[in-house]
Amino acid sequence: MLSFSCPIPLNEYPHVSMAHGGGGTLMNALIQKMFVATFEGETLKAMHDGAILPPPNGRLAFSTDSYVVKPLFFPGGDIGSLAVNGTVNDVAMCGARPLYLSVGFILEEGLSMETLWQFVRSMRIAAASAGVEIVTGDTKVVDKGKGDGIYINTAGVGVIERNVQIDPRSCRPGDKVLLSGPIAMHGIAIMSKREGLGFDTEIQSDCAALNGLVDALLESGTMVRVMRDPTRGGVASALNEIASSSRQGIRIDEAAILIPEQVRSACEILGFDPLYVANEGKMLAIVAPDDAPRALEAMRAHPLGRDSAIIGEVVAEHPSTVVMKTRIGGTRVVDMMSGEQLPRIC
Amino acid sequence: MLSFSCPIPLNEYPHVSMAHGGGGTLMNALIQKMFVATFEGETLKAMHDGAILPPPNGRLAFSTDSYVVKPLFFPGGDIGSLAVNGTVNDVAMCGARPLYLSVGFILEEGLSMETLWQFVRSMRIAAASAGVEIVTGDTKVVDKGKGDGIYINTAGVGVIERNVQIDPRSCRPGDKVLLSGPIAMHGIAIMSKREGLGFDTEIQSDCAALNGLVDALLESGTMVRVMRDPTRGGVASALNEIASSSRQGIRIDEAAILIPEQVRSACEILGFDPLYVANEGKMLAIVAPDDAPRALEAMRAHPLGRDSAIIGEVVAEHPSTVVMKTRIGGTRVVDMMSGEQLPRIC
Repeated sequence: MLSFSCPIPLNEYPHVSMAHGGGGTLMNALIQKMFVATFEGETLKAMHDGAILPPPNGRLAFSTDSYVVKPLFFPGGDIGSLAVNGTVNDVAMCGARPLYLSVGFILEEGLSMETLWQFVRSMRIAAASAGVEIVTGDTKVVDKGKGDGIYINTAGVGVIERNVQIDPRSCRPGDKVLLSGPIAMHGIAIMSKREGLGFDTEIQSDCAALNGLVDALLESGTMVRVMRDPTRGGVASALNEIASSSRQGIRIDEAAILIPEQVRSACEILGFDPLYVANEGKMLAIVAPDDAPRALEAMRAHPLGRDSAIIGEVVAEHPSTVVMKTRIGGTRVVDMMSGEQLPRIC
Repeated sequence: MLSFSCPIPLNEYPHVSMAHGGGGTLMNALIQKMFVATFEGETLKAMHDGAILPPPNGRLAFSTDSYVVKPLFFPGGDIGSLAVNGTVNDVAMCGARPLYLSVGFILEEGLSMETLWQFVRSMRIAAASAGVEIVTGDTKVVDKGKGDGIYINTAGVGVIERNVQIDPRSCRPGDKVLLSGPIAMHGIAIMSKREGLGFDTEIQSDCAALNGLVDALLESGTMVRVMRDPTRGGVASALNEIASSSRQGIRIDEAAILIPEQVRSACEILGFDPLYVANEGKMLAIVAPDDAPRALEAMRAHPLGRDSAIIGEVVAEHPSTVVMKTRIGGTRVVDMMSGEQLPRIC
């Protein structure tokens, strides 16, 4: 049962102090009352140095991300939900069912305990919604000024139960490129908040766990070559990575890529190309040509894939390069982004 | 083949910049040339969103720690070797053979590239020495002033191949408490460096991977109830956690606990009780009474357990409490440490 009020007495401990990371009674109370009680799992309660888990029935997928997003709260999520969904998605993109998460908190001395509690609640809700268990964790506190409120690392373990071979090197000319919906929402939600841009309607991050959508796609029996969630660097960077690993060309069609009108306007104001802007709830999938229709049908039947579309294909020409057919009928190379576009977006 | 010079051109990129975490070409070059080339594994080279790993033959152990140690270099190690050994040890304490590590870097803008390279090299050497593979990772860069050079998170996955049941709740009165060697070396090495204390001989951290020692102990056929590496909070906190989980009492004998003379002097100067000072290469094991002699023999036969000793036993009296027989013949309760003693020790 998820408590709605902070389980640490705020009148006594309104802020995180160095002692909350010191290995003594205060740290113990924080871990037991806030983390273990909220994340609930039996494995976590055992409080070993690590989690002991049953033998998985298949290959493993293992991934990690640290989250340093700024601001910590944004329309559509916060660093807590992002830290769960982001790692769930990385594990799911391996063709795995995400099972377990670890959580490493790096807290800045002086962080409001109430704020920490909101992130912990968000993580619990996101984990329950994605069907993963938080099984082990760690808490560190760094001196005031040596952090930025909170950084969260999560690592995820999943099991690959199906006989899938997710590998960009298996891409062949003719394969279709599918995208699960409109792009650039997460990055623009963050940047609008950070820059204090006032739009008529708030742009929401698409932050969501994609394991259900992945499951729907794999369940359809589609031959999936590779899946990727286009986060930092956006759709352009993800496709460039795939083109580079597979040594194939990729051709995409600008007209097939959905960009919400508000996102497009914000990109123009901020000077961003939406192809390079981060997503946190979208998936790219490259599938065998004959399977594209059923892949599309399976993805569209899932709430997070309603707006899925075939946006391009793998081609033998221009190996390792992504080329886009523009709306006005020309073509242009979509490069790997150089340098930074949106720092601290996740 | 481990390169000895930094694989990123230092004249071009003497420092980490925000763009090294931005998802574009600079980040890609850092990941490929420094991390993937140094950590070497085939799994890492595949550059999926996560690592795809063969089905493990047994239960899993899964653990994580973030490392925020200050200073980043200390006698006997650095944040890189600590980040590998610390998580290897947490996995090993579950009775598992550590197999895979994930690495999450949080780099502060302006960190010297040469310094980063030293940590990456340290990690590679420590991983090879412990026999674990770094299979997946993540890199974030935070603004200057919003970090402290570098924070590293590692998560570890291991397999429990033996039919061991490591669980503090299995402790029974009469069980023996073994300790693998002299204590408080890591904490004092850090504090001496931080406080600029000049001792005649430098105190070295005991930072080391304990999986070999654990393997030697389990291989002896000893019935092991629980193992723990007494890091933050030291031997006193680790034993208190075990006493609390098992609801048994623990009695230890001060005379049996080795404290190097220099460490003892430093503790006196700094006002620390060595029982609460962190170790990074020591192990506590609680074993069935009849197995204690062979456990001791197995541990002493290993280079990291040469000075192993039986330091106490589990008792029915004073449940959940640790009591120490002092050198002068009295007894005192060894409490859970309250508050902080040594912040940012690991």
